[in-house]
Amino acid sequence: MDSAVIPLRHGGLSLVQTTDFFYPLVEDPYMMGRIACANVLSDLYAMGITECDNMLMLLSVSQKMNEKDRERVMPLMIRGFRDAAEEGGTSVTGGQTVINPWIIVGGVASVVCQPNEFIMPDGAVPGDVLVLTKPLGTRVAVNAYLWIDQPEKWNKIKLVVTKEEVIEAYHEAMFSMATLNRTAAGLMHKYQAHAATDVTGFGLLGHANNLARQQQNEVAFVIHNLPIIAKMAAISKACGNLFNLLQGTSAETSGGLLVCLPREQAAKFCSEMKNLSSGAGGQGAVGGAWIIGIVEKGDRHARIIDKPRIIEVPPRGSQAANQENSSTSPDPSPNVS
Amino acid sequence: MDSAVIPLRHGGLSLVQTTDFFYPLVEDPYMMGRIACANVLSDLYAMGITECDNMLMLLSVSQKMNEKDRERVMPLMIRGFRDAAEEGGTSVTGGQTVINPWIIVGGVASVVCQPNEFIMPDGAVPGDVLVLTKPLGTRVAVNAYLWIDQPEKWNKIKLVVTKEEVIEAYHEAMFSMATLNRTAAGLMHKYQAHAATDVTGFGLLGHANNLARQQQNEVAFVIHNLPIIAKMAAISKACGNLFNLLQGTSAETSGGLLVCLPREQAAKFCSEMKNLSSGAGGQGAVGGAWIIGIVEKGDRHARIIDKPRIIEVPPRGSQAANQENSSTSPDPSPNVS
Repeated sequence: MDSAVIPLRHGGLSLVQTTDFFYPLVEDPYMMGRIACANVLSDLYAMGITECDNMLMLLSVSQKMNEKDRERVMPLMIRGFRDAAEEGGTSVTGGQTVINPWIIVGGVASVVCQPNEFIMPDGAVPGDVLVLTKPLGTRVAVNAYLWIDQPEKWNKIKLVVTKEEVIEAYHEAMFSMATLNRTAAGLMHKYQAHAATDVTGFGLLGHANNLARQQQNEVAFVIHNLPIIAKMAAISKACGNLFNLLQGTSAETSGGLLVCLPREQAAKFCSEMKNLSSGAGGQGAVGGAWIIGIVEKGDRHARIIDKPRIIEVPPRGSQAANQENSSTSPDPSPNVS
Repeated sequence: MDSAVIPLRHGGLSLVQTTDFFYPLVEDPYMMGRIACANVLSDLYAMGITECDNMLMLLSVSQKMNEKDRERVMPLMIRGFRDAAEEGGTSVTGGQTVINPWIIVGGVASVVCQPNEFIMPDGAVPGDVLVLTKPLGTRVAVNAYLWIDQPEKWNKIKLVVTKEEVIEAYHEAMFSMATLNRTAAGLMHKYQAHAATDVTGFGLLGHANNLARQQQNEVAFVIHNLPIIAKMAAISKACGNLFNLLQGTSAETSGGLLVCLPREQAAKFCSEMKNLSSGAGGQGAVGGAWIIGIVEKGDRHARIIDKPRIIEVPPRGSQAANQENSSTSPDPSPNVS
């Protein structure tokens, strides 16, 4: 499970908690703090939990930074983390900082819940629909952005993408990773989600497999559609599938929730995500929602069909996004009917 | 405070939690795991909390280790951590591991408590007695042990200590750091402790100052006695006070509790620690207890008197320890009367 659930000695309550820490992957320290916080909280959100009682922050400051850089960077990272925690309705009390060769940022999220506050991720039934709440391709975007300054790498992808497109995709990835999955967690209750997980280091298929394995019923998850940040599929192909993005195993950071919803609820879940998203000033605050597959009877595995449909998700603010404004529409793909 | 105390939405309960992580400082990976766990739990124990609902483990595996060393070392460290958690009546569910240049080991301890389960560390009154539950000098012992193989450093201390004494002191430090402060935490309730903290990176005086600053009453902490692992005071002096051990600011790892007790209770606290200690097979399982000072009226600071009495604490198992077996006796020093 994404979080540890510990029954407590007190009146049917459970302690739910999770921890995560990693290395910076975007240049902007403030955004990196937000991403780290969103990534920690995401494990609670994956269980349909929308509240968090406390966060601890875990930091290691790089010994290789000079005093000036350290004083410039670390407060911004801490500020980003705290701001995201506040957006999540919680706060940071406690933590630990050490000196280390590399910067590390992470945290712990804890909440004490009644049983109705969380959704055990084991109730998928055949006929359910799979929804994903953020596009894939964050790791590809982050890497491609670094390659702009590495001619040898850039030459591999320059025929399929422009620098401007890579920069737009990088920004899209950064904002997407910093987006809290909290709205999706709330809607999991409203639309009676049967199970969910968040998509991170093992990629969509890895986490789908983990989730399938935990199900009480003999089910299989079949993925038909891959919503991907625009152009990242092309980059992945141009690199000889270096990232395995289309195979579903490209690592994501602070990815979306993969939610199993009753068939009759999935479209409503998606359209409410869309409405909240435009109301809240764009996809930034709440994420999107794409129907990506179905739950069948099976042996508790997940798979992606041959030749899945690639949904190119335009970066927010881009011309394409402004024209379409449709990234969050329920997808009426015949594959899923 | 040593732990974060977060009031919960549920019936007067509080979430108390703390985190700590650091780098290995003893050679034995199993013992290092135990020390890391004892060090994390110690922040709960300092608040008189004897239970822990869950621990998370935080690990970074060194990229510089080869596969074989990694497979030899990391499972032992994890095992030590888990065993200490079990001794603390809790277990480890959850955590995170990353690859890093250096090994890091640490964790998170969380408990949901009723108000009577913890003791806010702010109730010291003039006339209270200060008790310390582990001897000082762990960092000196760990360093001196490394110097055995560094002739330039060893030459500085070889006139005051033998290699055997350093090895004994190192073992004493290792076992002392791995000792849980749980027994002391339990006795804090029985003997109505007014406040406590645990002694770690800022040394005895640093933590005494932090504790004094938090007091509701205008008090000062005056330290007369320094219980120190045998010979470590001599080493510190021979190094030109490199460690500031006698000044009270030598860092400790997983040190003892510094407890403010009502004068009439302090001796009983110490003798019960002594009894439990011998019953449990020696100081190993519960720590010791030394009266080290008093609480006076003052301006919320701590100080060590000029020429404090050094209590040489013989390593467990040493001849001196077997002869005396008195390290945990209440100290009738006239300084404290």
